[in-house]
Amino acid sequence: MVYIILDISGVEINFLRHGVKTTFFKRFGFPLRILGMMSGTSGDGIDGALVQFEKDGSFSLLWHQEFPFDANIRTRLKKLMNGCSEDEIALANSWMALLYSAAVEKFRKAHVDKIDCIAAHGQTLAHIPQKRKWGGVPLTGTLQALSGSWLAEKTGLPVIYDFRSRDMAVGGQGAPLVPFGDLRFFGGLPGDTVALNVGGIANITVIRRLPKPKVVSAFDVGPGNLLMDALATKISSGKNCFDRDGKIAAAGKTCRQLLEELMEDPFFELVPPKSTGRDRFGQRRFESIWKKWNRKLSPQDLMSSLLNFTVEGIASSLEKYVLPNGKIDRMIVAGGGAKNYELIRRLKMRLRGKMQIRISDEFGVPASAREAMAFAALGEAFLRGIPAGIPAATGAKQPVILGAFAP
Amino acid sequence: MVYIILDISGVEINFLRHGVKTTFFKRFGFPLRILGMMSGTSGDGIDGALVQFEKDGSFSLLWHQEFPFDANIRTRLKKLMNGCSEDEIALANSWMALLYSAAVEKFRKAHVDKIDCIAAHGQTLAHIPQKRKWGGVPLTGTLQALSGSWLAEKTGLPVIYDFRSRDMAVGGQGAPLVPFGDLRFFGGLPGDTVALNVGGIANITVIRRLPKPKVVSAFDVGPGNLLMDALATKISSGKNCFDRDGKIAAAGKTCRQLLEELMEDPFFELVPPKSTGRDRFGQRRFESIWKKWNRKLSPQDLMSSLLNFTVEGIASSLEKYVLPNGKIDRMIVAGGGAKNYELIRRLKMRLRGKMQIRISDEFGVPASAREAMAFAALGEAFLRGIPAGIPAATGAKQPVILGAFAP
Repeated sequence: MVYIILDISGVEINFLRHGVKTTFFKRFGFPLRILGMMSGTSGDGIDGALVQFEKDGSFSLLWHQEFPFDANIRTRLKKLMNGCSEDEIALANSWMALLYSAAVEKFRKAHVDKIDCIAAHGQTLAHIPQKRKWGGVPLTGTLQALSGSWLAEKTGLPVIYDFRSRDMAVGGQGAPLVPFGDLRFFGGLPGDTVALNVGGIANITVIRRLPKPKVVSAFDVGPGNLLMDALATKISSGKNCFDRDGKIAAAGKTCRQLLEELMEDPFFELVPPKSTGRDRFGQRRFESIWKKWNRKLSPQDLMSSLLNFTVEGIASSLEKYVLPNGKIDRMIVAGGGAKNYELIRRLKMRLRGKMQIRISDEFGVPASAREAMAFAALGEAFLRGIPAGIPAATGAKQPVILGAFAP
Repeated sequence: MVYIILDISGVEINFLRHGVKTTFFKRFGFPLRILGMMSGTSGDGIDGALVQFEKDGSFSLLWHQEFPFDANIRTRLKKLMNGCSEDEIALANSWMALLYSAAVEKFRKAHVDKIDCIAAHGQTLAHIPQKRKWGGVPLTGTLQALSGSWLAEKTGLPVIYDFRSRDMAVGGQGAPLVPFGDLRFFGGLPGDTVALNVGGIANITVIRRLPKPKVVSAFDVGPGNLLMDALATKISSGKNCFDRDGKIAAAGKTCRQLLEELMEDPFFELVPPKSTGRDRFGQRRFESIWKKWNRKLSPQDLMSSLLNFTVEGIASSLEKYVLPNGKIDRMIVAGGGAKNYELIRRLKMRLRGKMQIRISDEFGVPASAREAMAFAALGEAFLRGIPAGIPAATGAKQPVILGAFAP
């Protein structure tokens, strides 16, 4: 058994795989241009990001673009995600490949850069990370609709796909995968870094350089935009679905009592790794807040308080579970929340003297391209034989190479 | 657009793929030992065959072995094949990988030979070769349960899998795939060859050397053992499920009238490519024959007539659809029928002067290892960047590389 050390992006990653170095691919040299592609559970479209990787480990985003699904496709996808048969899955594999290839065609029309390879997530139809007894055998499993063979054939490009399975084969949850992208793109920075993503839920990736850059943990820290978006939708009667630039929150004052009440949520006492979602910080939670507080507080004050809830969830998680293990030099913010100026301003205020707050875009990773770029990074790792599974994030027994390849 | 000619087994294969030679793999040299693995729709187990491929194109079967499923597994598999949900498929992918890896473990215990790579079919849960309109989009698709990533992780060996999808992406039926194995293993012989497989149904692969060995057609020619097996089961009240060595048939005399009646089946008038199955030559057909003839003929005479039906289906198909296009030097017989001496004897008699009748085993391909060996050949082709899809067999628009790769 030997450890192999590969150098990417000034980031050295230790790995171990059956004691043998496994690099299979001879066709791919540098610069390497990988198109990362992602379609999420929201089912609203495919994000693409073409990343150029250089031999010295540096990278640059050549472009990123969205391929939105039309209403017809969204409806069919929702239906699929609510349950389907083996025949529907056989067809969905081909169908998603056709949609992904239509996206590639659109991207190619808009940009001239040569693409070497596609790294595509596919559309999750099932994900069972906890062992389920099935005919006496405890099993986990995951299913992303996308035929790599079809996509390769239709685009004429090699395709890397099925990124989640192998981590689950070594006891991991097959998620989250994006922390590897954070490591790839931010691991080369001096000092220790937290990558924060403020989507519906807020989550962080903690990267420490000791002695080599490494993801030491990755977990959900509390609500991101879910509650604020619900409020924006409510007070505009559905006209606006979010508080653009944080303007509503900026015009209000936070209610201490409400904030304290919200922070009593037992989620914040759970020791990481942990994850949460809509069931805890979604519409139902919002409705109960609204019912109790909408007569006592102005919409602005309510928004301000919910924004501070997000800020406090992030900051207190850092104070409880990250900073005790060593200082953090910077927190890099991505996701929709990175565009909420008021959120950034208050995060800076709240964590002043503890760490810098920076926007992901400053480091070559536009907030909205982060996920698709992460899949490009996963593709690079696959081609170079680098295990991209991160046990600290997924709970796997060991880091393994993620993905399968259709030439 | 350029044609690329690669030499395997003295067989040269023309192919075209986006005008570019695509060989991705640098790790694999010669000799190359590939474990072909197959589990069929009967759901009774996994066949394995370790084939060693040499640089000069020669090959040898190192061993072949079966991994039978126990009753519990067979029951669950039958249930799965009768319909399942997305969650069950996610788990079935992992489950089949565990079963395949258990088979590999058993094989490794019995044989010391180093395995370089696995080429595995998986378990078909859905196969939709005819375009089906689905939300307005006409689609085909196929689904073999087997996570390549899981199998690679559990065995520590690279895995090639998902062999059927890509042929379907270019309009093919994704089946049959075994003709490529016939081409690989018999294409190096001098002259023109028909590979005959007598399973439940009988099918042939026609290989002509003009100017390079090529599969010119592959199709079902009529019943194989289905009707004879049904009769063996009936007359032994379930004790025997087939006519061992063809002894019952050898003791009988064929009834001309019955044979003529059977040969009136319109299937024999269909121009190839064509396929058939249990619906035409299965239990229901047998019952109607039995009802009409069991008082008029002895069991031996009935068996003899059914055997001649199989022989006549094969011979007349050759006479109608193969021999008019040029002579055939030999027919190589595989499948359960290859062990039926009486079948072989009557085939020889019926086709005397037209072609030699030989048994697959004589050419290094034991009849019972033929399918698993074909998957080993498909694995070799994948690693060498050789398109193994055969349009003459599947109806695809062009030959494409088949398979995906988990390192």
